[in-house]
Amino acid sequence: MLDWTSATKTLQNASQILVVSHVNPDGDAIGSTLAVGNMVESLGIPVTLVNESPIPDKIASLPGAEKIQFPSQVSERFAVIIAVDAADISRIGNCQQLFADNPTIINIDHHATNDYFGTINVVKSDAAATVEILYDWAEYLKISISKQLATVLYAGLLTDTGGFRYSNTTSHTLRIAANLLDLGVASYELADRLLETISTSYLEQLKDSLATIQIDLDGKVAYLTSMEEDNEGLVNFARNIEGVDVGVLFRPKDEHHIKVSLRSRQLIDVSQIALSLGGGGHARAAGCTIEGTMDEAIEVVIQKLKAAFEGVNE
Amino acid sequence: MLDWTSATKTLQNASQILVVSHVNPDGDAIGSTLAVGNMVESLGIPVTLVNESPIPDKIASLPGAEKIQFPSQVSERFAVIIAVDAADISRIGNCQQLFADNPTIINIDHHATNDYFGTINVVKSDAAATVEILYDWAEYLKISISKQLATVLYAGLLTDTGGFRYSNTTSHTLRIAANLLDLGVASYELADRLLETISTSYLEQLKDSLATIQIDLDGKVAYLTSMEEDNEGLVNFARNIEGVDVGVLFRPKDEHHIKVSLRSRQLIDVSQIALSLGGGGHARAAGCTIEGTMDEAIEVVIQKLKAAFEGVNE
Ligand SMILES: [Mn+2]
Ligand SMILES: [Mn+2]
Repeated sequence: MLDWTSATKTLQNASQILVVSHVNPDGDAIGSTLAVGNMVESLGIPVTLVNESPIPDKIASLPGAEKIQFPSQVSERFAVIIAVDAADISRIGNCQQLFADNPTIINIDHHATNDYFGTINVVKSDAAATVEILYDWAEYLKISISKQLATVLYAGLLTDTGGFRYSNTTSHTLRIAANLLDLGVASYELADRLLETISTSYLEQLKDSLATIQIDLDGKVAYLTSMEEDNEGLVNFARNIEGVDVGVLFRPKDEHHIKVSLRSRQLIDVSQIALSLGGGGHARAAGCTIEGTMDEAIEVVIQKLKAAFEGVNE
Repeated sequence: MLDWTSATKTLQNASQILVVSHVNPDGDAIGSTLAVGNMVESLGIPVTLVNESPIPDKIASLPGAEKIQFPSQVSERFAVIIAVDAADISRIGNCQQLFADNPTIINIDHHATNDYFGTINVVKSDAAATVEILYDWAEYLKISISKQLATVLYAGLLTDTGGFRYSNTTSHTLRIAANLLDLGVASYELADRLLETISTSYLEQLKDSLATIQIDLDGKVAYLTSMEEDNEGLVNFARNIEGVDVGVLFRPKDEHHIKVSLRSRQLIDVSQIALSLGGGGHARAAGCTIEGTMDEAIEVVIQKLKAAFEGVNE
């Protein structure tokens, strides 16, 4: 169990609490916001939940999500803030306008890049999601976990692990998920809504993009183009094709620039490709922006990949 | 823990064992076949693994899958057989040709429709997968579970629960999965290979089918057509669209017949639609075959669904 002494003391002495998370929130950001809100309320302390951005439809259906406000809707200023799932203070955007002078910030997060911006920091980078850390706090506080609290915790686990599929999933993650199921979580419905549901706009994008898919370099590379931003991991459709190691998505950024997203399975370190084209990222997920037409961008990236695969085969 | 007394006694007295599973095997059928093979071998008893059908590529990469033979490759006849993941004896197809006269069959399965065809039957219909039952047997036998055994057990859990997404997933399933992770399963790689990988033939089918997608009845029904069999749950692409309750896939069966697959989210009992058209199934998944052209079949099904939705709204 983590050291919750300072965070708990600060919480228990607070007359009211502000809970914030990162802009453009995902399931873990909202799940964590709602979980902390639920926990603080169950201790009898008034709590205000805010986020700079609108909540995506899928996530907005989580129980209690209607309580999350835009900062502009809140007039109080807060001396105690709990920030969840935010790696640094800039990630919470204009929620900062609700801070009193010299506030006490409890920073609870799982990002390896967290810069310990809090007055109190509970950061655990091997946690699959911030909700995983919050489950620990709920146990420390001996809060009886309601079905509603269990549901928002489970939602964060599901979305940050891609349904327990990503490499951040540990046996600890699965044991917490099991405990949450025992508390009544309708896991099937959550998975259906959060992971399986396709928006009509994504469907259109998928249809259009799949029509452009090309397989190259003896089946080791697949690429597709899209006219819109890839919010749903369309690039993975290319990467996931049997035998393919690198998937690439090309998208016009403006009249003279193409945005490139690269994903790889195991052979190629795509951060090296992105880096050599002025971008960056990780070995398995990287990106860059190329000046030129779509055809030129494709030509450049395929040539880089061709050289990279030749390096692998040597 | 289940009652493993009879099954264990039969196993321990056997001089050799045949392991069989159902034709057109899925991840649970092969995972279970390999798991039993591994367990029986670890007890020092010779074991032969067979399946009537070729193993699909994705599943064939499981450790030990190369040991599974076609019945025609085996000359011995067996007095003791362990059948896994098969609801009735016909499901094992021509593996029956390897049975000695009056064989002892240990039937281990989780299908609710299992007809207790075995001499000894270990059937648990609330198990998410047959491998879940086999994990229990391994514990009963006090077998030390190797990484390889853990991997094939995990594979069965993953595929039969759609990655812990289906409603058959219980806290027990997740706790077993957690224990298997602790034994070294590369869960990320398994999920990637078994659940995320797209075959090039499926990609072509998806591309062609998505181009046909239509949304009807005020967004509550989506349907698409395919020229090939739907082995990968293409119909779910229709059902999963935001706001849609019923997804339908139409496929020409022969010159004069259309095969119809129906999936629903929650409002409509599609087994009633299928039944009224001479087919059958479950409330959430059903199917039928309609005589006529594609356009005629679509017309008939949409009219049935229209009436069903009117019934719901009354
Ligand atoms: Mn997170
Ligand atoms: Mn099964």
